[in-house]
Amino acid sequence: MSLIVVGTVAYDSVETPTEKRDRIMGGSASYFSLAANFFTDVSLLAVVGGDMEQKYLDEFTKRGIDCSGLEIRPDEKSFYWSGKYMVNMNDRETKETQLNVLATFNPKLSEEAQTIPYLFLANGSCDLQLNVLKQWRGSGLCVADTMNLWISTQRPQLDELLKQINGLVLNDSEAIQLTGETNLVKAGRKVLEMGPKFVVLKKGEHGVMFFSEKETYALPAWPLEDVVDPTGAGDSFAGAMMGYLASQNNLDSDTIKMALAYATVVASFTCEDFSWNRLLDLDLDTINDRMEQFRNIVNF
Amino acid sequence: MSLIVVGTVAYDSVETPTEKRDRIMGGSASYFSLAANFFTDVSLLAVVGGDMEQKYLDEFTKRGIDCSGLEIRPDEKSFYWSGKYMVNMNDRETKETQLNVLATFNPKLSEEAQTIPYLFLANGSCDLQLNVLKQWRGSGLCVADTMNLWISTQRPQLDELLKQINGLVLNDSEAIQLTGETNLVKAGRKVLEMGPKFVVLKKGEHGVMFFSEKETYALPAWPLEDVVDPTGAGDSFAGAMMGYLASQNNLDSDTIKMALAYATVVASFTCEDFSWNRLLDLDLDTINDRMEQFRNIVNF
Repeated sequence: MSLIVVGTVAYDSVETPTEKRDRIMGGSASYFSLAANFFTDVSLLAVVGGDMEQKYLDEFTKRGIDCSGLEIRPDEKSFYWSGKYMVNMNDRETKETQLNVLATFNPKLSEEAQTIPYLFLANGSCDLQLNVLKQWRGSGLCVADTMNLWISTQRPQLDELLKQINGLVLNDSEAIQLTGETNLVKAGRKVLEMGPKFVVLKKGEHGVMFFSEKETYALPAWPLEDVVDPTGAGDSFAGAMMGYLASQNNLDSDTIKMALAYATVVASFTCEDFSWNRLLDLDLDTINDRMEQFRNIVNF
Repeated sequence: MSLIVVGTVAYDSVETPTEKRDRIMGGSASYFSLAANFFTDVSLLAVVGGDMEQKYLDEFTKRGIDCSGLEIRPDEKSFYWSGKYMVNMNDRETKETQLNVLATFNPKLSEEAQTIPYLFLANGSCDLQLNVLKQWRGSGLCVADTMNLWISTQRPQLDELLKQINGLVLNDSEAIQLTGETNLVKAGRKVLEMGPKFVVLKKGEHGVMFFSEKETYALPAWPLEDVVDPTGAGDSFAGAMMGYLASQNNLDSDTIKMALAYATVVASFTCEDFSWNRLLDLDLDTINDRMEQFRNIVNF
């Protein structure tokens, strides 16, 4: 294994301006691992309840995604999130969150997992992220995601986390909240000063910016006309990015930009259907076709 | 002359969260012509009052910008706009507009001007834009800008204009207003159906999208950390784009993308200082240096 993700495998209920889906497959580690798996071997560390259908778990194993770190608690329920997207499909409101198994999730990296070179800490409490990071001694990169909740409730732990990770992935509103800067370039560079060697600032339909001490990169989003369900776009963005970086095992500027472009393309597919459905029938050839089109759209 | 712009030469008062400037040089045709002039010969058609200082007009002539179409009305006052930028430097509110000379502006293209191949109709009433278009018989392109006011008050004239022009330049909120679509890709393509052969959809700090029947291009903005004054960024974007297109005199995809990239870069310089100040001391070498950096930021 070259990449491990610690995150959630969960159920979502999603409402868009035109459609509604109840208890569909979701979770950061689900999207992440499927996206990463196009590029590299990936292992997932998560916990589910007895309500998680076997057919969903089979989707991981039949792709070779390592589920040895997936804990199943038969008498409990899986993490559940329910939300509603606004007309613009960018803003959303959370209607309900049931932590369930997540309330007592205390991830332990196995002996083997501790040395997996690339680690992604999907969005989760900073306490949990720090706890995983303490166990890890991989030779590659550790990158974390975060969200508004932890920025406002676990700031000391987040500050500590930022000093220990190689990269942070966050979205525009989180970057503004974390830094107090409304200019996103300023915000991105200010996050750098907090510790990470690089910052990936996602802007949804407006693309992505990458900041490191000496580098700045920016890409627009893939021009997607019909956004069916943006849930998991950020997680599959991170999955494709980390998967590609792990497969190349370097941080050359060309590699970084390719990783951002692959991430953009894979995230765009995720938005084309509910849940992880579009990722299930996707293959690398189709991804590479869109990469070529994306290159034509962007490069000058 | 290969390019003519019909627009305003005016005074602005600008307030940003940190600074304030009274009666500084402004106007769509001012920014446009300075930006276009880096790439091609440009002629401006506008009207000013006797209050327009000669030193400002000299800036046009000493760059070889043709001012034979600049009408001066000694007993009247120049168009005046005053506005205030919000903390994010993207949103602004208009505090005052004094039409002055603009109230009776009825632009006439000279015999020579009628055959200038590239025409840009800067933001103005659709009646005025249609009237200019009727006089023009250039062999190149006619591109127009518009704004929320005309979309809501002159919709029949705007619909007519859209059928007659080759390209429309507008920003994201205008595209949403014009089409009723909140997805910008959908909005851009819907504008195409209204008549123009191409649509340039500007998104400020988030870059630009280009749509034609068979092409879609997208670029992020230049990552600008210190936005001093965004006034005129859109007009200088259009100026650089049209100036480059006129200089190449074709609409190949590579030319279009280079035009959008030059437009992005020149607009970024405009934001670095108040009024047109940064454009005044800019040269093509400096623009080309930033183009190379931009290419490195964006291309993968």
